[in-house]
Amino acid sequence: LVPAYPPPESEDDESWVWTQIKAEARRDADAEPALASFLYATVLSHPSLPRSLSFHLANKLCSSTLLSTLLYDLFLASLTAHPSLRAAVVADLLAARSRDPACVGFSHCLLNFKGFLAIQAHRVAHVLWAQNRRPLALALQSRVADVFAVDIHPAAVVGKAILLDHATGVVIGETAVVGDNVSILHHVTLGGTGKAVGDRHPKIGDGVLIGAGATILGNVMIGAGAKIGAGSVVLIDVPARSTAVGNPARLLGRRKSDGEKEE
Amino acid sequence: LVPAYPPPESEDDESWVWTQIKAEARRDADAEPALASFLYATVLSHPSLPRSLSFHLANKLCSSTLLSTLLYDLFLASLTAHPSLRAAVVADLLAARSRDPACVGFSHCLLNFKGFLAIQAHRVAHVLWAQNRRPLALALQSRVADVFAVDIHPAAVVGKAILLDHATGVVIGETAVVGDNVSILHHVTLGGTGKAVGDRHPKIGDGVLIGAGATILGNVMIGAGAKIGAGSVVLIDVPARSTAVGNPARLLGRRKSDGEKEE
Amino acid sequence: LVPAYPPPESEDDESWVWTQIKAEARRDADAEPALASFLYATVLSHPSLPRSLSFHLANKLCSSTLLSTLLYDLFLASLTAHPSLRAAVVADLLAARSRDPACVGFSHCLLNFKGFLAIQAHRVAHVLWAQNRRPLALALQSRVADVFAVDIHPAAVVGKAILLDHATGVVIGETAVVGDNVSILHHVTLGGTGKAVGDRHPKIGDGVLIGAGATILGNVMIGAGAKIGAGSVVLIDVPARSTAVGNPARLLGRRKSDGEKEE
Repeated sequence: LVPAYPPPESEDDESWVWTQIKAEARRDADAEPALASFLYATVLSHPSLPRSLSFHLANKLCSSTLLSTLLYDLFLASLTAHPSLRAAVVADLLAARSRDPACVGFSHCLLNFKGFLAIQAHRVAHVLWAQNRRPLALALQSRVADVFAVDIHPAAVVGKAILLDHATGVVIGETAVVGDNVSILHHVTLGGTGKAVGDRHPKIGDGVLIGAGATILGNVMIGAGAKIGAGSVVLIDVPARSTAVGNPARLLGRRKSDGEKEE
Repeated sequence: LVPAYPPPESEDDESWVWTQIKAEARRDADAEPALASFLYATVLSHPSLPRSLSFHLANKLCSSTLLSTLLYDLFLASLTAHPSLRAAVVADLLAARSRDPACVGFSHCLLNFKGFLAIQAHRVAHVLWAQNRRPLALALQSRVADVFAVDIHPAAVVGKAILLDHATGVVIGETAVVGDNVSILHHVTLGGTGKAVGDRHPKIGDGVLIGAGATILGNVMIGAGAKIGAGSVVLIDVPARSTAVGNPARLLGRRKSDGEKEE
Repeated sequence: LVPAYPPPESEDDESWVWTQIKAEARRDADAEPALASFLYATVLSHPSLPRSLSFHLANKLCSSTLLSTLLYDLFLASLTAHPSLRAAVVADLLAARSRDPACVGFSHCLLNFKGFLAIQAHRVAHVLWAQNRRPLALALQSRVADVFAVDIHPAAVVGKAILLDHATGVVIGETAVVGDNVSILHHVTLGGTGKAVGDRHPKIGDGVLIGAGATILGNVMIGAGAKIGAGSVVLIDVPARSTAVGNPARLLGRRKSDGEKEE
């Protein structure tokens, strides 16, 4: 029933994805009265994807001392002022839909995937950090750590089309950089070795896949298209399109380029 | 003070366990006024174990857009319609009491163990999934992932007398099957390798013990009574009553049968 | 702007740290109106560090059946009656500030670090456990496990100047003992092997550093100043000032004493 991606030329990605989300929510509300009020409040009552996302995220992250109205205004203002944030939201939704076999719809990801929501909150925290609104950025990081068990420092640079699958326990440090089209499973750490200050966290190239529970420590470079095995402890650079596995991780050899450009 | 299990012939397991829970709650409410109102609301005001559990779970999993009354009705309806779900609740309580040295009472498990609560919510989500109420099943999975940091796909098949100890970070994928009498520690993943679609998750036999942080990936079979060491990364079949440890996991040899039937 | 530690002789550590926290909160409330009400409610409206901490912790850990007023009274009563608990709060704040490069202020730690908050709640639960108020201690442990994804048994003995960094997934068992000046990263387990009852959990010496995802199992002794590598699975004693890495962990050799006293 869902029309094939990409959308017709007459429509941009955001409005196409938003049309799909509303159609899914309408279908689900009709089929499941128990969800109708939830779907109306989170999707169907909103005129745009940024408003729906801001409402849902604000409700998830608010507390008795950090009100949902404040968070809603904050998220919506950031998404409105930064078209790149809106583009990243859409790219992440498309990434989840195409890369996660358990993702059955865009609304499934928008409403239910805490990894998706944690990344969107991080991007807003990163904007605040860059604007020197650091206490607010850190408060947001902390709420995400409490509510989603995902701890991303607001200074960390994260690309677009990210899949943070399952997400519990992910930790990404202050000077980490994550490229585009990266998939990160749960319990993954991009951390420091504890010996360095300053630029001390991993740099993850485009298209990297990091398996569950992998721990990558120090200012190491994981090249584009590399794969890091589940449970690996990586303390070394990993070349593009290589695979690293084990504790400590060793390289398994280089895969042929599959059309991706070299870094 | 607690009468020995099994209960007298005149009483079934559920009513016996519920009698113990009420006695424990009454004793604790008397000894600790600070808990009296909590124990009254969660246990002592309810006429049955399914109602007490449904109330407690609904309160834990509700949100501003998914009301506790809706969840209470949902849990109670499933527990009422499916006697096997009620039997599994009781079997899980008995498993925690007998296998976890830190479990000091049935009410301790019912009220405080997030692994126990996550499994009960999963069983209801699984019923909804089988009834083709998938959006609601996925919403429930998502709330359990937020609140308990336990992510079990509603399609996963989970047996009875399960101990999910500590529970943070447990991930169980869509096509995983878990037998009866299984103990799973925290941070355990029953995941996919990322290379397959369709039937892509582990099958765990009866009586298996999976240590903290073990990662089992792919459509592999862990035979009955096997033990998987903490921190193992298991990509292979493990025969019944064997022990697998390490990253990647290797087999340590077979234990003698201790009266358990072969698979 | 922050005056150097230690404070002048005229001031004790607690009042000095509290003065810094208030100054930081005032500065942040002035610079960020969106946080002013949060900072007023959690810090600026309180006359002392114990009251501010009790308020913040009670708000984080309360639920619809465990009211924040009850928790506030409980935390404040424990902190008032036990000067060693107040000293440990201050020591933990100083530890985070000096050992965590991402910690930008005492108020940052007090308000935002779930590891810090989980440890303070544990210390109160430990006092309740020692007073034989075990149901309340266990209820508190459970709330900390839900809200912070940190599971510390109330009987566990934890020293002061502890840094629990990122904290998600930390599990510390009933008979574990943790010394002073210990740093524990996220996903660390101080657990049992599942084979023993009674005294079955690790003993961690002063000044130990335990890397992310390390799993230490059984009644083993980790000597003062030892380092445990990320992702290690430790089933053996580790001598003072040694480093253990790998799965299973092996010793890397002994570091020279750097002025720390031997155990």
